[in-house]
Amino acid sequence: MDTNETRPFSLGMERQLQVEHKVLDHGFIRVVDYMGNDAAIVQAAQVSYGTGTKKNSSHRGLIRYLMNHWHTTPFEMCEVKFHVKLPVFVARQWIRHRTANVNEYSARYSILDREFYIPPDSQLQMQSKDNNQGRDGALDSRFTEIARSSLLEASDGSYDMYEALLNEGEGLTRELSRMVLPTNIYTQWYWKVDLHNLFHFLRLRADPHAQWEIRQYADVLLKLVADWVPLAHEAFVDYRLEAEQFSKQEMEMIRKMAQAFEEEYGSVDRINMPLLSDREYKAFKDKLDI
Amino acid sequence: MDTNETRPFSLGMERQLQVEHKVLDHGFIRVVDYMGNDAAIVQAAQVSYGTGTKKNSSHRGLIRYLMNHWHTTPFEMCEVKFHVKLPVFVARQWIRHRTANVNEYSARYSILDREFYIPPDSQLQMQSKDNNQGRDGALDSRFTEIARSSLLEASDGSYDMYEALLNEGEGLTRELSRMVLPTNIYTQWYWKVDLHNLFHFLRLRADPHAQWEIRQYADVLLKLVADWVPLAHEAFVDYRLEAEQFSKQEMEMIRKMAQAFEEEYGSVDRINMPLLSDREYKAFKDKLDI
Amino acid sequence: MDTNETRPFSLGMERQLQVEHKVLDHGFIRVVDYMGNDAAIVQAAQVSYGTGTKKNSSHRGLIRYLMNHWHTTPFEMCEVKFHVKLPVFVARQWIRHRTANVNEYSARYSILDREFYIPPDSQLQMQSKDNNQGRDGALDSRFTEIARSSLLEASDGSYDMYEALLNEGEGLTRELSRMVLPTNIYTQWYWKVDLHNLFHFLRLRADPHAQWEIRQYADVLLKLVADWVPLAHEAFVDYRLEAEQFSKQEMEMIRKMAQAFEEEYGSVDRINMPLLSDREYKAFKDKLDI
Amino acid sequence: MDTNETRPFSLGMERQLQVEHKVLDHGFIRVVDYMGNDAAIVQAAQVSYGTGTKKNSSHRGLIRYLMNHWHTTPFEMCEVKFHVKLPVFVARQWIRHRTANVNEYSARYSILDREFYIPPDSQLQMQSKDNNQGRDGALDSRFTEIARSSLLEASDGSYDMYEALLNEGEGLTRELSRMVLPTNIYTQWYWKVDLHNLFHFLRLRADPHAQWEIRQYADVLLKLVADWVPLAHEAFVDYRLEAEQFSKQEMEMIRKMAQAFEEEYGSVDRINMPLLSDREYKAFKDKLDI
Repeated sequence: MDTNETRPFSLGMERQLQVEHKVLDHGFIRVVDYMGNDAAIVQAAQVSYGTGTKKNSSHRGLIRYLMNHWHTTPFEMCEVKFHVKLPVFVARQWIRHRTANVNEYSARYSILDREFYIPPDSQLQMQSKDNNQGRDGALDSRFTEIARSSLLEASDGSYDMYEALLNEGEGLTRELSRMVLPTNIYTQWYWKVDLHNLFHFLRLRADPHAQWEIRQYADVLLKLVADWVPLAHEAFVDYRLEAEQFSKQEMEMIRKMAQAFEEEYGSVDRINMPLLSDREYKAFKDKLDI
Repeated sequence: MDTNETRPFSLGMERQLQVEHKVLDHGFIRVVDYMGNDAAIVQAAQVSYGTGTKKNSSHRGLIRYLMNHWHTTPFEMCEVKFHVKLPVFVARQWIRHRTANVNEYSARYSILDREFYIPPDSQLQMQSKDNNQGRDGALDSRFTEIARSSLLEASDGSYDMYEALLNEGEGLTRELSRMVLPTNIYTQWYWKVDLHNLFHFLRLRADPHAQWEIRQYADVLLKLVADWVPLAHEAFVDYRLEAEQFSKQEMEMIRKMAQAFEEEYGSVDRINMPLLSDREYKAFKDKLDI
Repeated sequence: MDTNETRPFSLGMERQLQVEHKVLDHGFIRVVDYMGNDAAIVQAAQVSYGTGTKKNSSHRGLIRYLMNHWHTTPFEMCEVKFHVKLPVFVARQWIRHRTANVNEYSARYSILDREFYIPPDSQLQMQSKDNNQGRDGALDSRFTEIARSSLLEASDGSYDMYEALLNEGEGLTRELSRMVLPTNIYTQWYWKVDLHNLFHFLRLRADPHAQWEIRQYADVLLKLVADWVPLAHEAFVDYRLEAEQFSKQEMEMIRKMAQAFEEEYGSVDRINMPLLSDREYKAFKDKLDI
Repeated sequence: MDTNETRPFSLGMERQLQVEHKVLDHGFIRVVDYMGNDAAIVQAAQVSYGTGTKKNSSHRGLIRYLMNHWHTTPFEMCEVKFHVKLPVFVARQWIRHRTANVNEYSARYSILDREFYIPPDSQLQMQSKDNNQGRDGALDSRFTEIARSSLLEASDGSYDMYEALLNEGEGLTRELSRMVLPTNIYTQWYWKVDLHNLFHFLRLRADPHAQWEIRQYADVLLKLVADWVPLAHEAFVDYRLEAEQFSKQEMEMIRKMAQAFEEEYGSVDRINMPLLSDREYKAFKDKLDI
């Protein structure tokens, strides 16, 4: 039986299967399984848009078109399952993405390991003045040292107490003993998600506004996506990650700029935009009213 | 008991309750119930962002900030329920929005009425050459007449057959008899959705790429949203409906234009952008690298 | 590279890949791709329940335990994608299951084929007297003949009109021409779903209350699940499909019966329940208060 | 403007609006808003099942029928929003219910209060021998005292360190300082959910297998549901909470018992089952093959 002929696969992702990618000090991401590839996205789009689409579009062109026009359902046809080890406070941010399947290690059933996230010194920063939710600027080196040793002490002390509660006398039940553990302790889970929802996760979590720690996970996921579905990854970078959005008010100014530019230099030089198809070039000018 | 003090309400939406808004030839939209208002969005954001947010933001400023930065969960705190009457082919497009609650009239239980959608003559257009999924350009008036009478004949003829199947002899079961009815027959449902997902619906269905018929429903929904949550509606228009997105490749050209503009005219004139806060103005310049 | 060592697979499902299973007169179901197997369910459960679970449970025992106690998340770790061809009225019932991914053939882009569902004579039944949503009892053979020829005539006549609208004069746009087609015309889609939600679908659609036509699809899906995840399939049959639920009021009577039985015959004979583990046997007696 | 005539309301729930119900030592549940009532469930069912249903069913009978036959969509037509204060480890269990809307207090933006959950002495129990995820049996009173003072010490010590990290020197950023806090600290959120998904939550979390702490919240929610939709609440108790399910194997034994009972005593006495309608009584006998 030659199954390779029938089950779609991605060569880049086959190589990643079960490979453990280190994240933070004790965490990891590991691809457990996946379904689909760039061709599966195209296949799904073609059942929707019919044979008309087949002729005049390369896979790359079609995938870029889908991403640009927010035709998201074909991307849902790919699925991936990760094994992730991560601090609890990161898990709490991550789980807010609801359209995914999760099985997490349960501290009601099992005893957690003595593994805590301690940030690298370079990340032990002060509260940002501009950004209410962020960090910005190195601490004085003396305070860096204090912060790090405080975190270590808090982590180890809490774990000692956890063990004592579990073991002293008859032992307190696990589901209560674990309450003393701080949220920099590591947990782990299987996380399964479709590609569209993974992109949504990455758009929010590979962003500078996301906490630095979850961004380290997002960056690894983004590289794995590049190996898995290179065309979809490229389209995601071009039309989401490195795209910009301008509000109605901002567009007024942008259009004024574009018109001034045209008056000065003549038509926007097509040569400067080699990657745009004719259709995209027309759409670009339409957006600018030029 | 004075319940008005405790249950949040929207004056604009109270006036819309149970009012039937005609759509197409036999359809309608009617607000059955709603939960929340602009203040409920702010309240939800403030539980997340804490008291720090309260002081220096007006409701309007905070709602615009949330919309601009894709902080979508506060908008989910508002909910609305509509009674909608619509042709089956429109219902088939509408139901693809999965994050909503639906109870539809069942033709297994009940007999459908003899009501079919017949487009106005102005909409009986030919297939678009540019747009594989659209219409574009009036038919010759003779063909308009033929098309309209064909649609009428098909509708009426199918309903006659439906009645005959139900009534002749012992009568064919309803769940099979209804199979002969074409998809321009009207159905109806209750549709309940949160404001975030309603905005997502409107972004796709109040768009020129959506079929004209579902757009008539989206336009009515959009007006109802303006009555219900005027601040959220304004932010949605500014940051979604009338915003534009530029890809990485397009941004290279936009940035070149902006830089040329600045060299020619000096800094982008703040006066031209009266609605932008200082923070938004800075973000605007950052996006343009100027 | 030997990928078989790392990517989980199901021998039964490999054999089903791309095999077309006929359903109704023109429909089919075809497995396009899948992720996971019985072992993947166990693996997900074990990350949750920890190593304690590993030792004393066979895969079969653990999967039955999960199903019995509604621990549904491990079943979500398996995913499957089908290509389905089905009448539109069946598609309308099917799509109500929201937790799935769908890409459907679009009659805005493409022209539908002249293929309509005509029920076998044995299914051309009259309206059920008991069941408002069902059929029950053969029609008089003369009416069977009338019903069948009416359906054929309606189908063919509507398709003739569809073609005429598309082709006469400049041609009416596809998105409007298709409105004349009745809901027994065939459409097709890719449908991707996780195993938990597939079981939920099967529980409702492989049920005698479901319309006969969608049940034909559910029956094929159920057989494919048996090939894919035989242990989960067996558990699903035992704890869902062939299980029964009794309300609080019914339980009062059941308990009275059980107590009378015990008084008469002594303890419920364990020998009669060979498949129950000790734990299940105890749970059974607890439910009956004996 | 008399809005009471048009916006559906529940007298029982109006009285609960904004009332704070204490849960655990520092937690609470408060109804912020709601949509719909028992009549809204009936209304949604009637649009599906048509006018045929109206005549011969009381609201109570119809709601019981819907619950019994897992017709879940009409229950989705009711929505409720709670403000909840709860320990983080409870929040982690709660959030696994994905079909809900949440806005949680963010410790990236704001500073958490010094409030920790310390279980009552009666709950400081040892690990259950039978139940890997539970507690069972009082600790020796000396160990109870040790456990309680350990929890207090761990909580207070961690908060002292949290404050020190925030305030010493330039202050470590909030998003990192909070990592030292254990999961018995309180957080709060708005949680909005439809009635069907709330019932699903209650079925799992008002169950003896759920951790005692989350059950305290579920019990309060259940009482609020009784005030809000008394008919749906009664049906939920009868057909879910106090119903029992028997597997295929168990049913073989149940049927044997029922048949023995019938042979001994004649037909199951209808008088013993006063709440069953004729239709339910017939269904009961069908399930038992008697």
